[in-house]
Amino acid sequence: MRQQEDGTARRQQGGTARRRDAERLLEPRTTLAAIAAEAGVSLPTVSKVVNGRPDVAPSTRARVEQLLDQHQYARSGLRRHRRSGLVDLVFNGLDSPWAVEILRGVEEWGAQHETAVSVSSVRHGDARPASWTSALASHDTDGVILVTTTLTDTQLHQLRSAGIPLVVIDPANTPPQDCPSVGATNWAGGLAATDHLLGLGHRRIAAITGPIDYLCSLARLDGYRSALERAGVRFDRGLVRYGDFQHEGGFARAVELLNLPEPPTAIFAGSDQQAFGVYEAARQRGLRIPEDLSVIGFDELPVARWASPPLTTVRQPLAEMGSAAAQMLGELIEDHPLRSTRVELSTDLIVRESTAAPATIVESSQ
Amino acid sequence: MRQQEDGTARRQQGGTARRRDAERLLEPRTTLAAIAAEAGVSLPTVSKVVNGRPDVAPSTRARVEQLLDQHQYARSGLRRHRRSGLVDLVFNGLDSPWAVEILRGVEEWGAQHETAVSVSSVRHGDARPASWTSALASHDTDGVILVTTTLTDTQLHQLRSAGIPLVVIDPANTPPQDCPSVGATNWAGGLAATDHLLGLGHRRIAAITGPIDYLCSLARLDGYRSALERAGVRFDRGLVRYGDFQHEGGFARAVELLNLPEPPTAIFAGSDQQAFGVYEAARQRGLRIPEDLSVIGFDELPVARWASPPLTTVRQPLAEMGSAAAQMLGELIEDHPLRSTRVELSTDLIVRESTAAPATIVESSQ
Repeated sequence: MRQQEDGTARRQQGGTARRRDAERLLEPRTTLAAIAAEAGVSLPTVSKVVNGRPDVAPSTRARVEQLLDQHQYARSGLRRHRRSGLVDLVFNGLDSPWAVEILRGVEEWGAQHETAVSVSSVRHGDARPASWTSALASHDTDGVILVTTTLTDTQLHQLRSAGIPLVVIDPANTPPQDCPSVGATNWAGGLAATDHLLGLGHRRIAAITGPIDYLCSLARLDGYRSALERAGVRFDRGLVRYGDFQHEGGFARAVELLNLPEPPTAIFAGSDQQAFGVYEAARQRGLRIPEDLSVIGFDELPVARWASPPLTTVRQPLAEMGSAAAQMLGELIEDHPLRSTRVELSTDLIVRESTAAPATIVESSQ
Repeated sequence: MRQQEDGTARRQQGGTARRRDAERLLEPRTTLAAIAAEAGVSLPTVSKVVNGRPDVAPSTRARVEQLLDQHQYARSGLRRHRRSGLVDLVFNGLDSPWAVEILRGVEEWGAQHETAVSVSSVRHGDARPASWTSALASHDTDGVILVTTTLTDTQLHQLRSAGIPLVVIDPANTPPQDCPSVGATNWAGGLAATDHLLGLGHRRIAAITGPIDYLCSLARLDGYRSALERAGVRFDRGLVRYGDFQHEGGFARAVELLNLPEPPTAIFAGSDQQAFGVYEAARQRGLRIPEDLSVIGFDELPVARWASPPLTTVRQPLAEMGSAAAQMLGELIEDHPLRSTRVELSTDLIVRESTAAPATIVESSQ
């Protein structure tokens, strides 16, 4: 019942704030059309700048950005006071069970803080709004959590100049030093996965990591390499593949690895979805898991325990990462200082039935 | 670019509307505390009524609901005009890959209609808001899409009296006649799955459907029964189990079925998650899929094609159901009449590698 009473109290206090808001609402708002007129360019050109499109002349871009800055600056104070009670959670795509795990964490925070969580997805192509920033334009937001997507300087600049707090989860590219972010201990996870396989007696261990330009892919792979080197096993670049974190990529890369003259006895798949691709490549080749091939994933999606055999994997605390990011965003919205701009939550190895000692221990060709 | 221009035009027209909104914001709002005072009851009691809790005396409930009605009625006109540009999507829980499929469809509609989609989950227990209706109280909403959850009369009444449009997706219990809902052709899906197995030569076909009190469970099971009867195969209640649509339930029920003196040669699992439970029960028993046991799921989650072997399943168009529900909600928000209050989107059989002819065709004991 406390929650309800708090809510009522807030609503009552809200009276004066609402009156102020009402007065502010009467101020004219700058439209993109007005900015286009002021800059002497077309509206589509302003849209291109807003959406971070490359095909705008540098001098035009600079002029438009300066005007956006001026006008958005004027709006930022207003935005800070007129809380919408809503935050935006923006995904790179809503095509993975991964997304719902993060969402659960953010939603939990939202429920505890009487904040609505608006979910959207970055869009590509021309048929629909080209950028998540245009989605934000349709409603007021108190802050944005961006999940595993690349951030252009223009986009970052826009959010900043509009005074909208931003936290990124597991950033694909290096975020600016002062941009708050949440991740998992990817390096430690790669190390733990590889240590587990080494401990079972594997020496010919392959790795399928994610895209080469994702920080988390590199960190997982570096953990794998360090574990090998620490155990005195030569790091063999021929056993490393870059995947796409998807099932299809895992399958294709596993087929390549299993076709090697001397195939691996274990594969660290770098994501659960890739691990299932490895399962299928093994099945098509008539290899049993774990008797003929050990497989280890990364993420601990709910599907990991549904697999046959249940998948050994590195748990990435996705829901907790969502909650932590929301927590940081809440601090930023309240104008509180952050204790740290980068939080990494720890990964755990979860041993199930997809890993075992190799049938015959193949010595690596050191 | 058209989208951008349209957006700008809307923002310009918005000037007068904003002025009207601003005046409305100055009107006093009725709080739950005021209703408690007027009803002569405590605030927690009003909260209980709002949240549909059972522990309130009938006469008190009636008095409070009448007051809520009066005041919310007064607000409903205001709400209709002061669009928040936001709709709520409420799930029974965010613990399934199922949720993200529906969300993708709703989000797509939202992006096309410049509407934010706020996602929340029904909560149970006392530590957090007990009901999704209290989540709605934290922000303005133009409408609600409720996914597979039961709706109390009080909750329905509340939304109605507050003038908030509602659409339910795949309702667990029978929705009131005039409550718009979206589902899949569950009966036809059960029929198609069973026909497929019969066509392969199976006669001893078991079914694990969902909870006995879910309409979709009953419809899938009735489709299974009709297919058997049409093919002249006796419906054997001993081969039917009610599951929970989860992996664990699928596993436990499959263990029971495989322990029967005359086990089935095929199992219609009623959900993909249950099908993976059947996979695991088969693996633990040393049965190969599909050589020793055919398995068919229902849903077509992305994980269905990741399974080893890839799962034959009945596709339920979850994303399309999300879009259809959002589309209906959009019509209601615009005060347009609906062509139909019940929409069922069709299911499709997707044949992969988990079904094959039985090793030896076991004649059912008719």
